[in-house]
Amino acid sequence: MQWYVVASLLTLLTSSQGILTTLSQSNGGYKYDYATIPFLAEIFKNFFQDMTVKLVAYGLQLLVSSIFLWRELKKSPPPRMTTEWKSVRLYPIPSIIYLIHNNVQFATLTYVDTSTYQIMGNLKIVTTAILFWLFLKRKLSNLQWMAIVLLAIGTTTSQVKGCGEASCDSLFSSPIQGYMLGVLSACLSALAGVYTEFLMKKNNDTLYWQNVQLYTFGAIFNMGRLLLDDFRGGFENGPWWERLFSGYTITTWLVVLNLGSTGLLVSWLMKYADNIVKVYSTSMAMLLTMVLSVFLFTFRPTLQLLLGIIICIMSLHMYFAPPSTLVELPVTVSAPDKTDT
Amino acid sequence: MQWYVVASLLTLLTSSQGILTTLSQSNGGYKYDYATIPFLAEIFKNFFQDMTVKLVAYGLQLLVSSIFLWRELKKSPPPRMTTEWKSVRLYPIPSIIYLIHNNVQFATLTYVDTSTYQIMGNLKIVTTAILFWLFLKRKLSNLQWMAIVLLAIGTTTSQVKGCGEASCDSLFSSPIQGYMLGVLSACLSALAGVYTEFLMKKNNDTLYWQNVQLYTFGAIFNMGRLLLDDFRGGFENGPWWERLFSGYTITTWLVVLNLGSTGLLVSWLMKYADNIVKVYSTSMAMLLTMVLSVFLFTFRPTLQLLLGIIICIMSLHMYFAPPSTLVELPVTVSAPDKTDT
Repeated sequence: MQWYVVASLLTLLTSSQGILTTLSQSNGGYKYDYATIPFLAEIFKNFFQDMTVKLVAYGLQLLVSSIFLWRELKKSPPPRMTTEWKSVRLYPIPSIIYLIHNNVQFATLTYVDTSTYQIMGNLKIVTTAILFWLFLKRKLSNLQWMAIVLLAIGTTTSQVKGCGEASCDSLFSSPIQGYMLGVLSACLSALAGVYTEFLMKKNNDTLYWQNVQLYTFGAIFNMGRLLLDDFRGGFENGPWWERLFSGYTITTWLVVLNLGSTGLLVSWLMKYADNIVKVYSTSMAMLLTMVLSVFLFTFRPTLQLLLGIIICIMSLHMYFAPPSTLVELPVTVSAPDKTDT
Repeated sequence: MQWYVVASLLTLLTSSQGILTTLSQSNGGYKYDYATIPFLAEIFKNFFQDMTVKLVAYGLQLLVSSIFLWRELKKSPPPRMTTEWKSVRLYPIPSIIYLIHNNVQFATLTYVDTSTYQIMGNLKIVTTAILFWLFLKRKLSNLQWMAIVLLAIGTTTSQVKGCGEASCDSLFSSPIQGYMLGVLSACLSALAGVYTEFLMKKNNDTLYWQNVQLYTFGAIFNMGRLLLDDFRGGFENGPWWERLFSGYTITTWLVVLNLGSTGLLVSWLMKYADNIVKVYSTSMAMLLTMVLSVFLFTFRPTLQLLLGIIICIMSLHMYFAPPSTLVELPVTVSAPDKTDT
């Protein structure tokens, strides 16, 4: 498969995920176990709600990867699988980074409001490129660097608060700690992505074996957090495994299917493409979600959304188009000094 | 002189012109002869007020150009000057285009509100590039076309209405005629610029002789319009020449000096640089005016202004930087197939 087919698929699935989540929330689909958390419930309920759903999705990803691995194992030659502890022990690291990242997100939201938080999220695009260049030693041309900055500018533009929206101009008024934590959060998120890419590309192990390791540790960390939260809550709602499939509607199952598929596509991209492709894919998905929301929900189209979309499409072209098609003049000129001597 | 020095000077002068105009208006500086025009006074008073001030500025430009021309005439060899009617008759054309343009602007404003009008003004950047390519046969690389679109996007972004501003979302609600007239207006404005460039570059006549022709016709058309308006108003305030210097303050004189200098700089750019340089120069001036307004007046800095500035600076770099510095990777790689045989 070509990387851009996978990336487009990821964009479509991620944006439909946004739509599905909105649908499931507005229809009172699956319930939030942690909706009682007092502050910033609207953001946090998503974190927690996703934890059981995500666990089920991890299960799905593990199942799919195991089936593929099992099929490959029957073939000859058998797939490459590094099973020594020295290699396996690296696979929990992305989960650990995400765990720290989640806590930093928590802390950030105690300082800044949700719209500032959303705007700062675009910083992740730039930090991913920086870590990609720094740790994976990938070279980017000046034009590609500019494209990356433009992508972040474009997604930010689409999120600029319109005239007539409720809360106003809180962007430059948060305490400095909020901005610093926002930057840290962007770095951690980028680090997790870059580390996963390093992991997937460091040897020629089959993708399915790498997936099995990655998702197993992901699921374990997820269960650990759910258990910890149950302990903290004094098992009020019973242990998590009793609530795992409670209140599932068709929409919830679609969310699980969607999360599972996007997880598998991201793994594929990390091995056969790279983090920048993923960043473009998810940024485009964000814009697509906004466009779909205009048609499906009561979201009003704004000038800034239109501008943001144009900026991001130009950034995409700047980053991926062959440089010669960009800088060469339509008519090939001169070169008269080259003579056949 | 280098073109970028002239362009920077033009940017500085144009933005200080914006500041001066605001100052003269807020201090009750020079009076508006046509402030009684019933509809859309805030825009139109500027059109008309500028007409007497602009005439004085034309006088200044004529004076300066004549002095320079006279000095050149004393030198040997004498400067090139085409005085035949076949050439001279082309010089009123820009003034005629501007005259039509002004009337189209009038008509546009009967359909759209002033903020939509301002946003549509950015279209001029793109139409200038199109006519530049179409009529002057100048080639632009794909990257330069993208830079042009980005410049228009950037200036538009900086003008996106912030949260909490008075009138809301009138952008997509004007009648279709308004948008069509806006496009026509952008085309006419671009045509005037492109035609002037054609005029200045079509032969090797000295710049000062070209200026004298251009400004003489400009002044004549200006006087004609003032007279026409006096006739329409039944000479209520007396003929325009009696009001020419009435109510002048030091600020008004500064505006005249500024208009005169920018006019001369634009002529220089049209002959020795091009329309695109002028477009960048005036767009940057618009942003600089907004930044200066933050410090000088009660203009609040917005996220969209910051985003717009970054977009425009990147566009500038994309357009003017040598392509090789943009697309080449930092480390020169490969080329191993070239052997010394």
